[in-house]
Amino acid sequence: MKKVAVILGSDSDRDAAAACLGQLRELDIPCAVRVISAHRTPQAAADFAKSARDEGYGVLICAAGLAAHLAGAVAANTTLPVIGIPMASGGLGGLDALLSTVQMPSGIPVATVAVGGAKNAALLSAEILAVEDRSLAQRLDEARRTLAAETAKRDAKLQQELA
Amino acid sequence: MKKVAVILGSDSDRDAAAACLGQLRELDIPCAVRVISAHRTPQAAADFAKSARDEGYGVLICAAGLAAHLAGAVAANTTLPVIGIPMASGGLGGLDALLSTVQMPSGIPVATVAVGGAKNAALLSAEILAVEDRSLAQRLDEARRTLAAETAKRDAKLQQELA
Amino acid sequence: MKKVAVILGSDSDRDAAAACLGQLRELDIPCAVRVISAHRTPQAAADFAKSARDEGYGVLICAAGLAAHLAGAVAANTTLPVIGIPMASGGLGGLDALLSTVQMPSGIPVATVAVGGAKNAALLSAEILAVEDRSLAQRLDEARRTLAAETAKRDAKLQQELA
Amino acid sequence: MKKVAVILGSDSDRDAAAACLGQLRELDIPCAVRVISAHRTPQAAADFAKSARDEGYGVLICAAGLAAHLAGAVAANTTLPVIGIPMASGGLGGLDALLSTVQMPSGIPVATVAVGGAKNAALLSAEILAVEDRSLAQRLDEARRTLAAETAKRDAKLQQELA
Amino acid sequence: MKKVAVILGSDSDRDAAAACLGQLRELDIPCAVRVISAHRTPQAAADFAKSARDEGYGVLICAAGLAAHLAGAVAANTTLPVIGIPMASGGLGGLDALLSTVQMPSGIPVATVAVGGAKNAALLSAEILAVEDRSLAQRLDEARRTLAAETAKRDAKLQQELA
Amino acid sequence: MKKVAVILGSDSDRDAAAACLGQLRELDIPCAVRVISAHRTPQAAADFAKSARDEGYGVLICAAGLAAHLAGAVAANTTLPVIGIPMASGGLGGLDALLSTVQMPSGIPVATVAVGGAKNAALLSAEILAVEDRSLAQRLDEARRTLAAETAKRDAKLQQELA
Amino acid sequence: MKKVAVILGSDSDRDAAAACLGQLRELDIPCAVRVISAHRTPQAAADFAKSARDEGYGVLICAAGLAAHLAGAVAANTTLPVIGIPMASGGLGGLDALLSTVQMPSGIPVATVAVGGAKNAALLSAEILAVEDRSLAQRLDEARRTLAAETAKRDAKLQQELA
Amino acid sequence: MKKVAVILGSDSDRDAAAACLGQLRELDIPCAVRVISAHRTPQAAADFAKSARDEGYGVLICAAGLAAHLAGAVAANTTLPVIGIPMASGGLGGLDALLSTVQMPSGIPVATVAVGGAKNAALLSAEILAVEDRSLAQRLDEARRTLAAETAKRDAKLQQELA
Repeated sequence: MKKVAVILGSDSDRDAAAACLGQLRELDIPCAVRVISAHRTPQAAADFAKSARDEGYGVLICAAGLAAHLAGAVAANTTLPVIGIPMASGGLGGLDALLSTVQMPSGIPVATVAVGGAKNAALLSAEILAVEDRSLAQRLDEARRTLAAETAKRDAKLQQELA
Repeated sequence: MKKVAVILGSDSDRDAAAACLGQLRELDIPCAVRVISAHRTPQAAADFAKSARDEGYGVLICAAGLAAHLAGAVAANTTLPVIGIPMASGGLGGLDALLSTVQMPSGIPVATVAVGGAKNAALLSAEILAVEDRSLAQRLDEARRTLAAETAKRDAKLQQELA
Repeated sequence: MKKVAVILGSDSDRDAAAACLGQLRELDIPCAVRVISAHRTPQAAADFAKSARDEGYGVLICAAGLAAHLAGAVAANTTLPVIGIPMASGGLGGLDALLSTVQMPSGIPVATVAVGGAKNAALLSAEILAVEDRSLAQRLDEARRTLAAETAKRDAKLQQELA
Repeated sequence: MKKVAVILGSDSDRDAAAACLGQLRELDIPCAVRVISAHRTPQAAADFAKSARDEGYGVLICAAGLAAHLAGAVAANTTLPVIGIPMASGGLGGLDALLSTVQMPSGIPVATVAVGGAKNAALLSAEILAVEDRSLAQRLDEARRTLAAETAKRDAKLQQELA
Repeated sequence: MKKVAVILGSDSDRDAAAACLGQLRELDIPCAVRVISAHRTPQAAADFAKSARDEGYGVLICAAGLAAHLAGAVAANTTLPVIGIPMASGGLGGLDALLSTVQMPSGIPVATVAVGGAKNAALLSAEILAVEDRSLAQRLDEARRTLAAETAKRDAKLQQELA
Repeated sequence: MKKVAVILGSDSDRDAAAACLGQLRELDIPCAVRVISAHRTPQAAADFAKSARDEGYGVLICAAGLAAHLAGAVAANTTLPVIGIPMASGGLGGLDALLSTVQMPSGIPVATVAVGGAKNAALLSAEILAVEDRSLAQRLDEARRTLAAETAKRDAKLQQELA
Repeated sequence: MKKVAVILGSDSDRDAAAACLGQLRELDIPCAVRVISAHRTPQAAADFAKSARDEGYGVLICAAGLAAHLAGAVAANTTLPVIGIPMASGGLGGLDALLSTVQMPSGIPVATVAVGGAKNAALLSAEILAVEDRSLAQRLDEARRTLAAETAKRDAKLQQELA
Repeated sequence: MKKVAVILGSDSDRDAAAACLGQLRELDIPCAVRVISAHRTPQAAADFAKSARDEGYGVLICAAGLAAHLAGAVAANTTLPVIGIPMASGGLGGLDALLSTVQMPSGIPVATVAVGGAKNAALLSAEILAVEDRSLAQRLDEARRTLAAETAKRDAKLQQELA
């Protein structure tokens, strides 16, 4: 199976990485984690992106805050799907990171998830790999059913509690 | 090859659909267009999403404005990758559609592109299909080179004009 | 009397539900609470909405955060009045939930109250039921008078304290 | 049947009133239109609100822009359901009117619809009146079916156009 | 001398009132404090405003949060200068209160100060009373000189500390 | 009577000045207009502010856009009441000018009116001068009655038109 | 003298470039214009930045819109001062470009000017070059005096017009 | 070497000053710190700015919050490069200070860095001084390499931790 890379712009976002990796491993998707900064190590970002397809990666997940250029800088150097996670940091609640990640110019898309949406980034990468992998698609469908069942259980519990 | 569906919440966004379809056809990707509303025809949205994988779709692109629930409503009913295009309409410049599309809760991701980013949605769907299709990946790489060449040509032209 | 349903997108918002239910019971309005997610259990949301009028419900209150689609998803499946409570969660202070709830497209209204406005949602549902129920209207008028009296008492107290 | 009042803060918003009234008359709901300003004629606003229930009104719709206090000023003087339509005017796209209308303090709810959402305000008032009026509820259900059918027709048409 | 009234929409903002009153008393300006709500006690707000000039008030200061209508509701009922203090409460950082206070329609001005700007509201009321009161103007000038002197002292101290 | 100065940061805002002056002259208030920039002619701004009280001014109105420092720069140099009009220019709808004008630090207040609120700035200056001028207060009360009467006339007219 | 480079992310912003170049030439500063995209021609952006100091550049001005990464991508590859001009495009009025340009992470600064502030970017680059060039500093001082004189002239003219 | 001044609008921002000074001293750049307020000590701000070039300053860094006029007030009185640091304070997360600092009118630029970006302000001032100081440029290049190396080290460490 193709691998998923989880790239952080800063190791202060390690919780996001852990959430991504946890979800990916739960789905048996091979993955790797990196700390690469679009601004502090731009060459590493470009190099990683350029060789990622040949290295066996299928999707690249990039998490960054503030003027979050990481996903865009990676997307500029590959035609693999790139998922951007805007991270909240500072006083603007992640609005800066969200706009910096999602408002990409025509020609270079970034698939943006919610502010801090690490788990969803992992699920989205799985959905992408599952397009041609029916077994993974089934594991995703199963995870959805589990999610629905949990919600139903919470529904029953809350009805009791607040009755 | 898997197909891409382009779904509009309202036919007033037909230009976005045309831009998507144009890009997809340029890349030889089979595609279909639909007008389905998360609010006016919710059952149709759920039905389309539920059967999409079996109908041969690989990626679903959803364009909607205001409280843009279309991508989320579709994503809730499939584990295919769903791409959301927030459309600007009304006075908030698309900020409402952007937040309604991207801020999805944990478990149900939507791959959001820029406000009005129809062409990038098409390219992103192509990148997703290209993960397991080296020929499409090459067409995408080629398109990138063309884009770079055009920028270089504009660079030369502007240098002359403003010299 | 018609019943009021209080539906949460996530059981993490149970405080909002408790505030709603408390206010409704204080006004002797029959009510029920549910956890139903527009994204995790979309079919349950549609089913509940479709049968709500026949089940004796008069108003449906929906509380959700982030890309808060719950009220819209319910409203899409009923012509009962649907009240949306945008819940703050994450860094954007509830602006995402507010816009996702209130900016509904033409044809499918949602009656939106303030971010976190659980008590007002309950009062609004009571006002709706009171349109044809003079006794409930009188209880609401009485509650208003109590509110005014409390404000007057606080006025007197503060004047003393800060004199 | 109870009447619906459509109140404008300024006659510059007459298009919104016309849209409301058109929708209400289509549904055979008796209605009246007024221009009353929370700031220029505050006593008229209070007087209208206080006597509205006795005058046979069931729902009050208030449309105002900028620091849109009209709905709140009316709601402060009645326990009838009050629907607020934030109107866009000036450079902030209606965000000022939206927040001024929706962020009501605990105790005095306003049912807020989308910026400029005149038609939805009318539909919401109809839904409120329909809680105890099965015939009106049926007319609303019928309107929904028509809406869905129109969307389906546009779907078919767009598929042809862009095939 | 004319009096200054400090009106709170809610007694939860008593710190703002205390800051106002402290500053006013420091300047020997007679003042009174009230809790009056534009929404819970609208008649009291109108009554207070209507009689304020005859009661000897020269300026009315109104502090309120959320959909902060208090200053506007007071201003609608008097031609005394009304100062509005938008109070931050909830997740929007006071932006809702600011826009609700400042974006008044043509004809009914409110003199708005910063979010939470209680002390400045008191100073502004003093400046207004000082237009025709040279002695108060001198006390204000003196307060400015003190402020400048304190800044100069802090300048000297910080230079030492960080040298 | 004390005079009112209307100061523009840029002569591109001459319409705002004309609206101010028109309203002031209608109320028989002596007034002057100036173009002084906080950034291009900072010394002139400081000089004007410092001598304004002695020159017979009672209120200073400052209109500026973008990073609108004019009102603050004037207020820093006088204890006369300073009214700020944030002017919309550029793409942010005046939000930049509003925040730059209203968010003044403790000690130096600016009485801020709505974005583009030139007429209200003039009325507010009149209200300030009327605190000690009963005749002007009566003219202001009269203007309010006229405003109310106009609204009532529009109310009657719209009721006819849309009947 | 060191040269100033004006780099556009897209040739649609040629007016900004022309405004920059016009101002620079007026001040006799050697300059060059380029179209280089952080996303379409990332290698060219890195290469230009890396060699800029050796090529005789002293300041690099970068203008870009949307998720405006150009200034950041250039700054990541040089320690020359980089000035960012956020360009407004799309519905968000340039807020996206502003945040994407200014919110740079620690270590890699970008000197950001106003949305669309092309002329100021040129002046800022001139101020930077003038730190060690007294003759250029004098030309800048002269330009400031001219600016002040123009404002004074407009002041006189407006006073006449509106007298 | 020219000196860098770090000016605070309020000594409550001393941490920002300390961060600036620390970075400047690490780079062997002579520097001074001041507390000068655009509003409380406007003459001091103007005087400092006017004489700064003759006093041997090359760059002026100004940190202020809220309606942050300090950088603009300083820039209005000098043609030295002025760097503005918007400081977050109050509920708006620094958006007020950012817009007040960056949206300068044509003719008077301010080089704005991120909200709270004290370290980057120091680095930017160093980059400006390094334009004509190759030794300082080398120290900056060295600092960049250190930054890159640290990121690489964190990359290796995180890969281990999360493997």
